[in-house]
Amino acid sequence: MMENKSKKVCPVQYSLDILSGKWKLPILHALHKASPKRFKELEREIEGITPTMLTTQLRDLEKHGLISREVFATVPPTVEYRTTELGQTLKPLIYEIKKWGVQHMRRVEEV
Amino acid sequence: MMENKSKKVCPVQYSLDILSGKWKLPILHALHKASPKRFKELEREIEGITPTMLTTQLRDLEKHGLISREVFATVPPTVEYRTTELGQTLKPLIYEIKKWGVQHMRRVEEV
Repeated sequence: MMENKSKKVCPVQYSLDILSGKWKLPILHALHKASPKRFKELEREIEGITPTMLTTQLRDLEKHGLISREVFATVPPTVEYRTTELGQTLKPLIYEIKKWGVQHMRRVEEV
Repeated sequence: MMENKSKKVCPVQYSLDILSGKWKLPILHALHKASPKRFKELEREIEGITPTMLTTQLRDLEKHGLISREVFATVPPTVEYRTTELGQTLKPLIYEIKKWGVQHMRRVEEV
């Protein structure tokens, strides 16, 4: 799954390699708030995301074991996404990012 | 500086708008470890970054008030970078990202 690197890797860069981009953390944040969610629900909740980007990002998150995808044989098929146990371990990180956003937004408004 | 948005902005997306990309947090992390640092020192420390990318990212960080840049009239001129008070507020966030990287790297190695 992951190449074995003998050289020393910076853990910050390692995390960012997996999590970087505009959408991965907002998707995980939406699934932390409530799981499971359908594709359409995520699309509505995450402002500005296109269906193509959402598809790509969901596949990437699944590949890294952070979310799981379940298909139900309804007509049309229903697809549900939820965070995995590994995905749950990102909660404190996303909480810090959210906290900083709230504080910084307030600071900008006060200026 | 920042456009006044009347619509509700998600704080996670707000933070990511400022911090996203592969390099901003590694640069801040390097400056948190020790400040001030020169351009060449940052270039050596942050593995894989090109001078062009480093220049762009440093300008962006300065624009958002997260780092400051000081020029000394030596021959050739010396330029030093350090984190601002606002940049310091990102320490807990970067610490969480680092912690997750360390834990996740260990998990992958154990598999």
